[in-house]
Amino acid sequence: MISKVKNAMSNWVGGMMPHGHHHHHNHHSGGGQNCGQEGLPHRFPYGRPDFLDLTPELLQYSTEHASRPVIALKRGTRLPWGTGYAEAINAGKSMLNEDQASCEKLFVRKPSSKHRNSTLVDDNGDNTGIPLHFWGVYDGHAGSGAAIMASKLLHRIIRDGLGEICHLLENPNSAPPICLAKNGSPFQADAKKGAAQEAAEDTDAVCDASVRFYMEKVVSLESLVMGVIETAFKQMDDLIEKEKTSYAISGGCCALAAIYLMGKLYVANAGDSRAIIIRNSEVIPMTNEFTPESERQRLQYLGFLRPELLGNEFTHIEFPRRIQHSELGKKMLYRDHTMTGWAYKTIVEDDLKFPLIYGEGKKARVMATIGVTRGLGDHDLKVYNSNIYIKPFLSCVPEVMVYNLDENKHGPDDVLVMGTDGLWDVTTDKEVAEAVSTYLSRCDPSDPMRYTLAAQELLMRSRGVLKERGWRLPNDKLGSGDDITVFVIPLAGHESET
Amino acid sequence: MISKVKNAMSNWVGGMMPHGHHHHHNHHSGGGQNCGQEGLPHRFPYGRPDFLDLTPELLQYSTEHASRPVIALKRGTRLPWGTGYAEAINAGKSMLNEDQASCEKLFVRKPSSKHRNSTLVDDNGDNTGIPLHFWGVYDGHAGSGAAIMASKLLHRIIRDGLGEICHLLENPNSAPPICLAKNGSPFQADAKKGAAQEAAEDTDAVCDASVRFYMEKVVSLESLVMGVIETAFKQMDDLIEKEKTSYAISGGCCALAAIYLMGKLYVANAGDSRAIIIRNSEVIPMTNEFTPESERQRLQYLGFLRPELLGNEFTHIEFPRRIQHSELGKKMLYRDHTMTGWAYKTIVEDDLKFPLIYGEGKKARVMATIGVTRGLGDHDLKVYNSNIYIKPFLSCVPEVMVYNLDENKHGPDDVLVMGTDGLWDVTTDKEVAEAVSTYLSRCDPSDPMRYTLAAQELLMRSRGVLKERGWRLPNDKLGSGDDITVFVIPLAGHESET
Repeated sequence: MISKVKNAMSNWVGGMMPHGHHHHHNHHSGGGQNCGQEGLPHRFPYGRPDFLDLTPELLQYSTEHASRPVIALKRGTRLPWGTGYAEAINAGKSMLNEDQASCEKLFVRKPSSKHRNSTLVDDNGDNTGIPLHFWGVYDGHAGSGAAIMASKLLHRIIRDGLGEICHLLENPNSAPPICLAKNGSPFQADAKKGAAQEAAEDTDAVCDASVRFYMEKVVSLESLVMGVIETAFKQMDDLIEKEKTSYAISGGCCALAAIYLMGKLYVANAGDSRAIIIRNSEVIPMTNEFTPESERQRLQYLGFLRPELLGNEFTHIEFPRRIQHSELGKKMLYRDHTMTGWAYKTIVEDDLKFPLIYGEGKKARVMATIGVTRGLGDHDLKVYNSNIYIKPFLSCVPEVMVYNLDENKHGPDDVLVMGTDGLWDVTTDKEVAEAVSTYLSRCDPSDPMRYTLAAQELLMRSRGVLKERGWRLPNDKLGSGDDITVFVIPLAGHESET
Repeated sequence: MISKVKNAMSNWVGGMMPHGHHHHHNHHSGGGQNCGQEGLPHRFPYGRPDFLDLTPELLQYSTEHASRPVIALKRGTRLPWGTGYAEAINAGKSMLNEDQASCEKLFVRKPSSKHRNSTLVDDNGDNTGIPLHFWGVYDGHAGSGAAIMASKLLHRIIRDGLGEICHLLENPNSAPPICLAKNGSPFQADAKKGAAQEAAEDTDAVCDASVRFYMEKVVSLESLVMGVIETAFKQMDDLIEKEKTSYAISGGCCALAAIYLMGKLYVANAGDSRAIIIRNSEVIPMTNEFTPESERQRLQYLGFLRPELLGNEFTHIEFPRRIQHSELGKKMLYRDHTMTGWAYKTIVEDDLKFPLIYGEGKKARVMATIGVTRGLGDHDLKVYNSNIYIKPFLSCVPEVMVYNLDENKHGPDDVLVMGTDGLWDVTTDKEVAEAVSTYLSRCDPSDPMRYTLAAQELLMRSRGVLKERGWRLPNDKLGSGDDITVFVIPLAGHESET
């Protein structure tokens, strides 16, 4: 997320180490983002994704706003499925790259008694359980803390959530029971019991068949996995809030995650990052963006039902521009939370308040503060110079789309592209698909670097080249000045997995 | 809307005259639908659409539940564009046909000083102004009053709303001004002023150009027309509420309207009626249905933010079935207002309340009462045997879709089909398209009855034929026992209009 308001920040970058709450705040950050965090240790130190394996020199190099080096996966590093990756820092809006990414192979298994109360543990090289592939892209704003923390933990929360329904995943052909045993799933039974005993309880766990007489919805396993992912985003958000009392966790972030489990690809998006599948050079969009414009009616509805959240400063009614005091009594175009079209209303005193949703396209803001309406963190974000919190209007719940990967045939040039808005702001879906398809078709199919090279190609196309008049694309249009992060994931990569 | 609960009502129909509050109530009607209406006169008498021109004998005949006669447009009656129409009464769920329909050609003009305070007047044969074509389909429930009233007035409210922006419609190439003169549009200026003077004020009306320096959204004329239509539905609903103090206006209704204005077709839908365009035998859906399932999250969100509306009887959380008291402490699948997938939660006391949304498909209900979530009327509708009102959960605002009619070429077999759910419950879009395309292709292209015959064909296909085991379709499946109403509107009909 880039601030569209230019700031006077120097391009000079000083010492690299954690200073999330020192670096420059653009107007997204509001007044109170870091209140009370001074002196607290960081939850995770600043860095780039582990899989890049950057030396301190390279880490320093990656932050040069003047050259904006493209950092890509090293030759020799192999990510799951042969995934390609590239990133570049912004043109100066923040000292550090606020994007983060993760790519992991994990294993879903029953929560063991040992770890009953310590979730989020490492897999410790014990490769038993149901394999789970995870790709995450996090676009931070007003600090890098939330994005870093999410990139370290969200996939583990999802894995642990799936662990809770592991016994259902292991029987994919029987519909999940509506109701489980008293005091939770069979797995929370006494750890001393044997497997057979547990299995018996499993049957017992399903509620009395007599109640089946009544209407009972059949819920698919797929929608249970969706439920785990939705719940995990909420748990991640709650964890950030909880740990903010002990750690400095600055800002918020958009979160885009792709999860491959048992033949299906789940793409979960909260924010304005974007993922598309490119299959036979055709685009299949896997996300919708959540912005003040796309979520206008939801936000207006909340402001309408809970006007106290607007702090007497904002109106939930949308106007096409600010109203001047002298215009009282005139008629102006407006939209309320129920409308898609526009109508005229007579201007009254209350309409002089600032509109809850204001601005167009990338400049649209909630309460003049934030340009994205879903994501993690931002618990302390307030309207500048006020005590009005933005968080009640933000949602941490992703929209999850499912792609049945194993039921489709994929060639080596069929990929999932995941990117932060730095990519998509200047490059359309179609341009991305053309660039990737053209590039891959010319590339040696046996080159293990081909997907990273494709990611690099996309990155160059949206960052552009530094000219006298800023970062410019080949067509001389302005390139993206934002942080840019791109995954190119081969959909046939799964088959080549050992 | 048909009740899925069979009632013991006799098929015998007595005297025909207005007795909206006498006829049998199915469980949609709740306890208090007609409270306080006893003794009030009807706003409009019961009848079938004027254009059918039924004699008293035919009106009586149209209510025979045993034979369910197909009532179609008479040979010799020509509706605008040569529109075809057919209808049939239900199989016995209510004494009268609760569907209504209207088809009108109107003219949009400035509100004249004469009618300043009396809207809803007739056109009086004065064919000046911008022509407006209107088709409306109204599916009543729990009484026929709201549907009848809407079928008489909604198109006039829309016409009058468009009249207010008539000066903008007359200049379709200039963007509508954001702000109009103090005290309303120029048309509300003193009636004694001449046209030239009014035009001068019109220019004056646009606000000071200096404010344009700030962000200002450009609003299209099309979205202004959408705003008029959305507002008109709200005005219609408010009028029903207001006039209920003086008249008996029973029940509520779904409303589906098609408006042709200045080259564009606007299709506005509030409820579970449905409209599709059939072009080159291909289906273009022009509506989405609004039901407890499709609007689940909106309703749950309201219940979550305003729990007092649930009257301590309902929970906003969705469960796949009722929970029994003995299941307290067990874990059950659930969805809250943010979720699309399902997850398990431990059952607490509060979860024993009845779910706000309950049931599947056509049996899904809001607060166990109503199976449709948008429409007009229903102001007095309560949960059976309680004081809990349903209306706060219902929306009267339509979704409006726009089809650029004049920018597409249409042959004589390209049509817009509008129908109440009686049609669509048993016949898919594709089946309707095939039936219409096949029928019209075999039909004499010069027969003025061809679209009415096509409507009749669709009607027969969804009503079926009475056999020993009820109304049956040719494939022996159950036909629709609901009221059925169908318009078949030729899209090239506009060109043949004189």
